[in-house]
Amino acid sequence: MTAWCREALEALDRADPLARFRAAFQLREGLVYLDGNSLGALPRRTLARLEQTVAEEWGEGLITSWLGAEWMTAPRRVGDKIARLLGAEPGEVIVADSTSINVFKALTAALSLRPERSVILSEAGNFPTDLYMMQGIAAFSGGRVRAEAVPGEAVLDRLYEDVAVLLLTQVHYKTGRSRDMAEVTRRAHAAGALVVWDLSHSAGAIPVDLNGAVADFAVGCGYKFLNGGPGAPAYIFAARRHHAAVVPVLSGWFGHAEPFAFEDGYRAAEGIERFLCGTPPVLGLTALECGVDLMAEADMAEVRAKSLQLGCVFMDLMDAHCGGFGFTLVSPRDDARRGSHVSYAHPLGYGIMQALKERGVIGDFRDPDVLRFGLTPLTLRHVDMLEAVLTIREVCETRAWDDPRWAVRAAVT
Amino acid sequence: MTAWCREALEALDRADPLARFRAAFQLREGLVYLDGNSLGALPRRTLARLEQTVAEEWGEGLITSWLGAEWMTAPRRVGDKIARLLGAEPGEVIVADSTSINVFKALTAALSLRPERSVILSEAGNFPTDLYMMQGIAAFSGGRVRAEAVPGEAVLDRLYEDVAVLLLTQVHYKTGRSRDMAEVTRRAHAAGALVVWDLSHSAGAIPVDLNGAVADFAVGCGYKFLNGGPGAPAYIFAARRHHAAVVPVLSGWFGHAEPFAFEDGYRAAEGIERFLCGTPPVLGLTALECGVDLMAEADMAEVRAKSLQLGCVFMDLMDAHCGGFGFTLVSPRDDARRGSHVSYAHPLGYGIMQALKERGVIGDFRDPDVLRFGLTPLTLRHVDMLEAVLTIREVCETRAWDDPRWAVRAAVT
Repeated sequence: MTAWCREALEALDRADPLARFRAAFQLREGLVYLDGNSLGALPRRTLARLEQTVAEEWGEGLITSWLGAEWMTAPRRVGDKIARLLGAEPGEVIVADSTSINVFKALTAALSLRPERSVILSEAGNFPTDLYMMQGIAAFSGGRVRAEAVPGEAVLDRLYEDVAVLLLTQVHYKTGRSRDMAEVTRRAHAAGALVVWDLSHSAGAIPVDLNGAVADFAVGCGYKFLNGGPGAPAYIFAARRHHAAVVPVLSGWFGHAEPFAFEDGYRAAEGIERFLCGTPPVLGLTALECGVDLMAEADMAEVRAKSLQLGCVFMDLMDAHCGGFGFTLVSPRDDARRGSHVSYAHPLGYGIMQALKERGVIGDFRDPDVLRFGLTPLTLRHVDMLEAVLTIREVCETRAWDDPRWAVRAAVT
Repeated sequence: MTAWCREALEALDRADPLARFRAAFQLREGLVYLDGNSLGALPRRTLARLEQTVAEEWGEGLITSWLGAEWMTAPRRVGDKIARLLGAEPGEVIVADSTSINVFKALTAALSLRPERSVILSEAGNFPTDLYMMQGIAAFSGGRVRAEAVPGEAVLDRLYEDVAVLLLTQVHYKTGRSRDMAEVTRRAHAAGALVVWDLSHSAGAIPVDLNGAVADFAVGCGYKFLNGGPGAPAYIFAARRHHAAVVPVLSGWFGHAEPFAFEDGYRAAEGIERFLCGTPPVLGLTALECGVDLMAEADMAEVRAKSLQLGCVFMDLMDAHCGGFGFTLVSPRDDARRGSHVSYAHPLGYGIMQALKERGVIGDFRDPDVLRFGLTPLTLRHVDMLEAVLTIREVCETRAWDDPRWAVRAAVT
């Protein structure tokens, strides 16, 4: 354990190759924002770009902007940019809909490729929408498909020959635990199953190599580490080898081979475009592209190195300053098994987090008792870790968590 | 037929109770925009509101804006506002996803309420995404569900007892033909079927009375007459009597009874919220709300009266000025059977529309030969009808449609 002093942390910040990125975001002075894994901060460039899209492209160009401002091709263009962050090829990723809807697309695609198998397998405690979408498919299938969630450590042992598709999140939303994508995919393939990876806490946070892992399908969210804005559109990856065989269940007109031929019969588009469904959300795509462009300027190896260091510093400081306050580390200490957030359990976690937010240290709380601290290397400094931990200490020492305003938990935490 | 002179049209504009709305939109001088039924014009208030959402709510409020800026409740809040335009109650409409995805939700909901029936019925030539979504459901059902599209005039005669749900567009996207919602719904119910209405060309264009018609489900688009911006989120209506019985197939976390309880098992939210799926698209919702608020200021009876008058004027002027050029009216001349756009077929339609666009008269073209002119009462003047028709005459007289640039049709028309 290192008792990091402020001077040492300031030295790390001076040497930080990613330090310049902080100025590219709007972040008010004094704020320690540790929730970029839930909603990424606002890139400064986004506002001007959106103004252009609204006032010029929509306001002046009107309908002609579908071609003139390249709205039509934005889902593919932004998808190709995201692909570079994920170890995928151009034409294997497209931006569309929400993560939930894309989970549905990926799972039904995988099921169609394993028609003789019936089980969608996941882990209990996976991000809820992943589990819920599985359950919805199973219910609609009328008995043909079963959704099964087993404890995380038992998932690979449950890969019997009835498993059509394994749905896993690479970095767990609550614990921050990271899975070995290549090894899990290899095991699933050996058992004859396909894999759908949820990359919501991976993209822009850790290096991802979908094709290196021979991945089948993946989905992810645009509003976390990609800084695409609240409710940003999501993305879906499908390995090129699967494109031709998959006929989408959500067969909307933008996934048609010729949307503007207005034919009565669905014919899927050639490639990744068949995973589009409805009309693309242009405003959301515009903001997302700004976030993705900014992320693409960063070296992912440097992002990963800083993310891990921020995590180590934070955990060391928690040990040094908050050791006696009853926090239990939930995230893996081992760098190889940790994503880009660090979580602690504490029985008074809800009140502690509310008190932290009042003091300008913003993380989030996840039922029943988890405090989650997101570590976004583009916006955070090493000294921010010290500010955060000293504030946690102050909250505990002064019992600031004990406030009648927080006796009842808000519905949104 | 009246040969409307400019003075008469100017007099109509002076007496127009909706005239003041034009200034609320950004529309460049000299433009005659007849495509508001494809992409509505930009309300001037939208830009400032979006800037606030981005710079203040996202940039400063960050994650706390889900509650602090009421992002969480925006789908319901905007849905309630749309409900007032549709003859629905608060809590019966919610904003979510795309029209295509909502068609899927509404159809699967209706199917679950008629488990002993197997057919989704629609009309051939319906808006393609409606047909495609039906086909996707049928393919995924493994034979349990069949998708059937029959000629429009034969739909009501095809209501055998195997029909679970009838999917129709109230105002046809190509012809502008309007259906009698109450009568069709009554016939379907008498045959034991439910109805899903696509209101994409209805909402904000004609008076809609969903509950007066005892409608079951409806969907619609935010970017046409509601002026919500390119790719705006869509909405879904479900009659309150159906809420409790419908368990969503697209069972995403925002449709859960307690999304932030992070439970492993899906429990549908109490009311219309169960038709939510993924995280709401905040930027799109913000722009949509501006458009809906503006529309809500208008009296729908006045909107309808002006829409019909604009249509009559346009058709009269086409008869008077373009009678010899080979146009065939596609839309019903009868007011009671026409929505808020007027369409003509012409074998040279594609080139004619391109030439019109170059001259600042913007309508659109729909394969194989239909020129479509959208009549949006909040932005258009009666004199604009004359400008448009005189430009059409000039294009025909000068054979401006005959241009090598338009020899090959663009993929997007």
